[in-house]
Amino acid sequence: MAVSNDPETKIDVQSEPAASTEARSGSGGISGILQRHRREDLIERGCLLLRGIALVFSLISFLLVATNDHGDWKDFDHYQEYRYLLGIAILSSLYSGIQCFRQAKELSSNKKLIQPNTAALVDFFGDQIVAYLLISSASAAIPITNRMREGADNIFTDTSTAAITMTFFAFFCLALSAIISGYKLSTQTYI
Amino acid sequence: MAVSNDPETKIDVQSEPAASTEARSGSGGISGILQRHRREDLIERGCLLLRGIALVFSLISFLLVATNDHGDWKDFDHYQEYRYLLGIAILSSLYSGIQCFRQAKELSSNKKLIQPNTAALVDFFGDQIVAYLLISSASAAIPITNRMREGADNIFTDTSTAAITMTFFAFFCLALSAIISGYKLSTQTYI
Repeated sequence: MAVSNDPETKIDVQSEPAASTEARSGSGGISGILQRHRREDLIERGCLLLRGIALVFSLISFLLVATNDHGDWKDFDHYQEYRYLLGIAILSSLYSGIQCFRQAKELSSNKKLIQPNTAALVDFFGDQIVAYLLISSASAAIPITNRMREGADNIFTDTSTAAITMTFFAFFCLALSAIISGYKLSTQTYI
Repeated sequence: MAVSNDPETKIDVQSEPAASTEARSGSGGISGILQRHRREDLIERGCLLLRGIALVFSLISFLLVATNDHGDWKDFDHYQEYRYLLGIAILSSLYSGIQCFRQAKELSSNKKLIQPNTAALVDFFGDQIVAYLLISSASAAIPITNRMREGADNIFTDTSTAAITMTFFAFFCLALSAIISGYKLSTQTYI
């Protein structure tokens, strides 16, 4: 009772929470901006990492198919499925390589090489289309490899299987990257 | 000189733009909300339309493959590629059918059957996964059909080609729907 009747104490009791709220909201605003920047940076680095992994898998797939020539019927060039697999592996390697190079340069120099809006569009549609092509080429090559392995299990069919698996891994990375690019595209401001 | 020295004219000149700005911003706010609602409605109907078309194409593909049995080697059941095509056509028909039913019911009753946040997630990942499966099954069935047509061009290979084409059309619709669902997912508020 004595405490609540003392005007000085009253003021102190009331002013303290107000001041602390103000301080909290002030630091909340700054930490909010920092958090957003950290999140954007994390997304950017995550995308770079995914494309880097996709590049490695695509390159391995490309090398596996391109060197898969063991004479006679064991030559990848005789089968349209493996030629398609090779073509898409080359395309995916080129795409992932160029994107990684651009993104790494942007991250290191902190300067955008192309307009952010255009970049977001290219990122999203590029990732999405290459992901569709990768799963398409892997799916096309599976049945023939399956049939060959029923008859003979040799270095040719094993290499083909490995190349298909690598293409699938590259597909998973780019499909995930496409989802992240889609998120980036939608949070882009057009003002 | 006479006009600018008259205080009444001065006030008139100054107040007019201010009033018109206010009126403009007021109507802009309402029309902005209306525009947003119209856009959301359009997106909702667009998604429903795309899934409806995907349902039709998937059903045609399913019927084409399922009835593609002309005895001897001309039976879809002998080839894993066509069995895969059939399976994915059934899955895609079921998925598109359930989604269309849900969306049409929500549009007609103006009541959400499942939570908007969950719905946005299910929409996006469902569309995306079924689109990947559709292009995968179409790609898997193309090489064997191509080889068969080199040797013989009959009703069996023609029906297979038609089914593959229908699967591709269904894929295009669901891939487009996945992009729209991704946009909806990202504009969803989680508060």
